[in-house]
Amino acid sequence: MGSYFVNKTDIKDFPRFRYRGILLDTSRHYLPVQAILKTLDAMAYSKFNVFHWHIVDDPSFPYQSRTFPDLSCKGAFHPMTHIYTQSDVRRVISYARMRGIRVLPEFDSPGHTKSWGKGQSNLLTPCYRGGTPSGTFGPVNPALPSTYWFMTSLFKEVSSVFPDSYIHLGGDEVDFSCWRSNPYVRTFMQKMGFGVDFRKLEAFYIEKIVNITSALNKTSVIWQDVFDNHKPRSSLSVVEVWKQGCYLCEVRRVVKAGLRVILAAPWYLDQPGPTHNWARYYNVWPLAFTGTEEQKRLVLGGEVCMWGEYVDATNLSPRLWPRASAAAERLWSDGKQTSSVERASPRLLDFRCKLLRYFTFLALNVLLTGLEYIVMLLFHFFRRGIQAEPLNVGHCKHEYQGV
Amino acid sequence: MGSYFVNKTDIKDFPRFRYRGILLDTSRHYLPVQAILKTLDAMAYSKFNVFHWHIVDDPSFPYQSRTFPDLSCKGAFHPMTHIYTQSDVRRVISYARMRGIRVLPEFDSPGHTKSWGKGQSNLLTPCYRGGTPSGTFGPVNPALPSTYWFMTSLFKEVSSVFPDSYIHLGGDEVDFSCWRSNPYVRTFMQKMGFGVDFRKLEAFYIEKIVNITSALNKTSVIWQDVFDNHKPRSSLSVVEVWKQGCYLCEVRRVVKAGLRVILAAPWYLDQPGPTHNWARYYNVWPLAFTGTEEQKRLVLGGEVCMWGEYVDATNLSPRLWPRASAAAERLWSDGKQTSSVERASPRLLDFRCKLLRYFTFLALNVLLTGLEYIVMLLFHFFRRGIQAEPLNVGHCKHEYQGV
Repeated sequence: MGSYFVNKTDIKDFPRFRYRGILLDTSRHYLPVQAILKTLDAMAYSKFNVFHWHIVDDPSFPYQSRTFPDLSCKGAFHPMTHIYTQSDVRRVISYARMRGIRVLPEFDSPGHTKSWGKGQSNLLTPCYRGGTPSGTFGPVNPALPSTYWFMTSLFKEVSSVFPDSYIHLGGDEVDFSCWRSNPYVRTFMQKMGFGVDFRKLEAFYIEKIVNITSALNKTSVIWQDVFDNHKPRSSLSVVEVWKQGCYLCEVRRVVKAGLRVILAAPWYLDQPGPTHNWARYYNVWPLAFTGTEEQKRLVLGGEVCMWGEYVDATNLSPRLWPRASAAAERLWSDGKQTSSVERASPRLLDFRCKLLRYFTFLALNVLLTGLEYIVMLLFHFFRRGIQAEPLNVGHCKHEYQGV
Repeated sequence: MGSYFVNKTDIKDFPRFRYRGILLDTSRHYLPVQAILKTLDAMAYSKFNVFHWHIVDDPSFPYQSRTFPDLSCKGAFHPMTHIYTQSDVRRVISYARMRGIRVLPEFDSPGHTKSWGKGQSNLLTPCYRGGTPSGTFGPVNPALPSTYWFMTSLFKEVSSVFPDSYIHLGGDEVDFSCWRSNPYVRTFMQKMGFGVDFRKLEAFYIEKIVNITSALNKTSVIWQDVFDNHKPRSSLSVVEVWKQGCYLCEVRRVVKAGLRVILAAPWYLDQPGPTHNWARYYNVWPLAFTGTEEQKRLVLGGEVCMWGEYVDATNLSPRLWPRASAAAERLWSDGKQTSSVERASPRLLDFRCKLLRYFTFLALNVLLTGLEYIVMLLFHFFRRGIQAEPLNVGHCKHEYQGV
């Protein structure tokens, strides 16, 4: 199997950006805990330090809440096999922590909440057609006091379960048509003086949720939609930029408003694509906008998004790796010194082979002595077995064997 | 884990096409034998019956020849770890046979042979620049008698190792520029009366190779390039259509010439693409051209191609499955009765979950009695664990666990 030597080496290194995240979406497909842990392993190899857990969304609510067990009982794909128990969540957080990775939970609202409605009645807005309820539901109902009682309890639980000081509140892609159809919502709008500007209603809702989580000592992260629609921005803290197009224009707008920013737009790796196009993820430079030093310090970092429409445990790893590693180097290394695709290419080819490397210990069927145990631990470090797909024609010394 | 019952059922079913193939490319990336066997399992579940083994090509020559051991010693990515030994090949053939799958070996020439040149001197054409050899090599040298002695020995071995009555001779994408640069090749052309028509030279070469394999009682398959360039077509038997564009026009030309045809063009699944676009692979109808019944009988079937530029054991399964299953249904079922994408959709969703299903037997750590052994065999039938990627948002009862 070859020999490995441990060098005494002096390393001077420092991350360029403090936030280097990967988003996994466990609502559109359920990811078994093992798949999450394996991703955390791979993240550590590429020095990612934030696992953004987009844990719930329209299709399913796999988080098993202590306070509201019906949310997963009725909202998960399956109430027993397709959920994350409190113990699963603790295991993920602890596994991540041991690898220097924070877990940033996202409970996205008021949109993207269809699955919430199954286990919590009177939470979503009933949509109307021709003056009567149509039987379908829209975003969270911002007009009912009960909504905020519920959210207070839920976020109180979530804040204690997830120790990270950040919490992601979502806020993206809110469809106003259902709110508009509902006479009670419209009456509420009048009472609040919002007229027919549903962005004001959305801002009102988000403001309430931000205040709930602030009171729990959490820094809130929201998707850029909230920043775009929200005029009194004083309560906002961190904005995540996800829309394609001129994303650096948006980054600039956010930091000019004095808010911190996370850039995700150029790293939507759930899109299948020729792997050899990895340079497009490497060539992103989050600070390539006109602004002051102070403004640039507000760019916390970036995030690779792995949305779940067409991704589950069967294809997660090859779709993420090694493309995400290209983004990781961009987020870790200084863009002035490390910017050449030509020089990065052999590094990435080599690194991809290192990700595959997998040793089996069938020969090691003896009782372990202390020394052997240490040797095995060292081997464990080299035993990665990440299903990182090939960048081009070629081979690795140890091909992926885990079939 | 749930119960399974065995029904007594009377099934009337028959394949629409007799040739339902999958091509794997083990030259651009080496696929460990386990990955090939796993693919054969998955092929059987979708009733594919031909494994087209594109075993060698430019980048590497992993086939370990008894007659010419230097071919893999010098032409494989690694002479020990990245080869298929005689025993590996026998294992693949036997594993395939037990699943009703033929193994069609392809030794593509005269192009796509760079790796052959490493272990066999004087086989490839030396390219010239400015009147002197440039140090690079082109296609197999058709002007030397030694070429045909070598090919006779190689195909004699290959014909005995691979029992199938078909053999694939390749013949695609021959670049004439190196032949043109070589004065000895040009002299040979003059002697043979080919003038400067290198297609005649190509045809001459292929004719010789076809005759070698005919003498070994093999039916030869060639890529469409040979048919297109080859005027005396009497020696040709089966043509594989791979070029995009109006592929049915080509199918029609081939059958009008009285030759048999295999259609691959619409099923290039090595292209990554949104999995939910599977209908494009399902909506292909190989007989949708104007022709006589007799001509249509010359369409043997179709083939899914999984070229290896960006595919190896890390991403082979999710890229193949379940998209290839859509092609498989097209090739098995009558297009008149089974053509609705809407009706196929729930079947494919269900089938994809069946491909994932994976039972572990950790609980079964007792000595097996006869009955238990039968139960285990039955379970084995349900134990698939194929990494088939998701078609859309949703879930399977048993998610893929093999991480």
